[in-house]
Amino acid sequence: MGAAQGRAGPGASQRKGPTSQALKDEKDLALGEGEGKDSGLKQSQLKVRFCTNESQKSRGELVRLLRRLGFDISEGEVTAPAPAACQILKERGLRPHLLIHDGLRSEFDQIDVSNPNCVVLADAGEGLSYQNMNKAFQVLMELEKPVLVSLGKGRYYKETSGLMLDVGAYMRALEYACGIKAEVVGKPSPEFFKSALQAMGLEAHQAIMIGDDIVVDVGGAQRCGMRALQVRTGKFRSVPAAGSESDS
Amino acid sequence: MGAAQGRAGPGASQRKGPTSQALKDEKDLALGEGEGKDSGLKQSQLKVRFCTNESQKSRGELVRLLRRLGFDISEGEVTAPAPAACQILKERGLRPHLLIHDGLRSEFDQIDVSNPNCVVLADAGEGLSYQNMNKAFQVLMELEKPVLVSLGKGRYYKETSGLMLDVGAYMRALEYACGIKAEVVGKPSPEFFKSALQAMGLEAHQAIMIGDDIVVDVGGAQRCGMRALQVRTGKFRSVPAAGSESDS
Repeated sequence: MGAAQGRAGPGASQRKGPTSQALKDEKDLALGEGEGKDSGLKQSQLKVRFCTNESQKSRGELVRLLRRLGFDISEGEVTAPAPAACQILKERGLRPHLLIHDGLRSEFDQIDVSNPNCVVLADAGEGLSYQNMNKAFQVLMELEKPVLVSLGKGRYYKETSGLMLDVGAYMRALEYACGIKAEVVGKPSPEFFKSALQAMGLEAHQAIMIGDDIVVDVGGAQRCGMRALQVRTGKFRSVPAAGSESDS
Repeated sequence: MGAAQGRAGPGASQRKGPTSQALKDEKDLALGEGEGKDSGLKQSQLKVRFCTNESQKSRGELVRLLRRLGFDISEGEVTAPAPAACQILKERGLRPHLLIHDGLRSEFDQIDVSNPNCVVLADAGEGLSYQNMNKAFQVLMELEKPVLVSLGKGRYYKETSGLMLDVGAYMRALEYACGIKAEVVGKPSPEFFKSALQAMGLEAHQAIMIGDDIVVDVGGAQRCGMRALQVRTGKFRSVPAAGSESDS
């Protein structure tokens, strides 16, 4: 996500995928052109924030990776779903069963996970196994009022091996089986965009969102009153899947 | 499914689950009481048909199993999703990518699976892995008009180890990711109930459906004009999950 005060400026939507590919695209988005890593971005007078649904890595790991690739970025410039979810868990006394990627576990270090009374679902990659999905389902079904918190609701993302199902697909599976609606933390949730704007001290009309997902990035930002720009990289497809606008 | 002419009679809803448990329940349902295997059923003047969403075994294997447990049953008395799906595939020139249990593959022996132009999804058990789900998704996304055929849309079933996600959950995952609606073959599809009635030469009002699933068995049959009876065994829960009536 790039959010710019005053005029539209360059920015980056953090996109999941294999690291090299994701970050290659990231760089393309952030710079538009040129070779100077994100120096063009930093030298501008624009406020920039990276708004990501990344849920396979902690913010620390994500930032280390971006810095190794030459991005001048700190953890404080990243809005990500896991910390937002932790806030919700603490506020509501929720103890999660975590169906998440091992790379994300450190974000939940301060959270009580004993005797779970909810499930937190993220893009756990290989962790989204038949066994683990059943376990999460069983935890939910044992609760009087099942609570499912989903870190994002993306439909799919792109890896070098092809398109991959994202957390939203597995969220829908659990929603259907349990007869519940998940609480989505991350894009396109309005609360998530608003927290990013708040961190920048900007109003929605002062910012532009740049991303490759027509629903999660562009649609989500527009519903918050922001302008938005879709880049034709990453998982961009010239013909959106049927129903993508209403169902994602 | 028990369907009876003239008056309500005993019958059986084939239920998935571990074999011994499923068939124990089967026997309970079929007989109601007594020790005589299904002799009570067969000695009555009632027409009976087993209407199953079983999609882990071929009809042949299912019938062999039931016979070993003392049921007087033949393949011709079973209405099952796989043969119904094969009929649809042949009629429409569809060549499936099969995401199904190995035990069901023999039902598709006569089907061309080269260069797939659709996906057939069933309760593949352990086969519903992260890798296999991604593969099915990729096949669908490569099609101009993705066709997903789902053998049933059950939400969950019961095994000795607990409740397990059924095919419907994974169907929803693929539907959401691709932005499509699956074609469901099996209960509660009206076509499926009608084919069972046709096989018995009965009208809907002459038959009663007996099963443990309030949505798939009872609701599906009622929408076809049949009476229906829910048994309190198997996956029966006294409080249906929220949304179960509208979304299954």
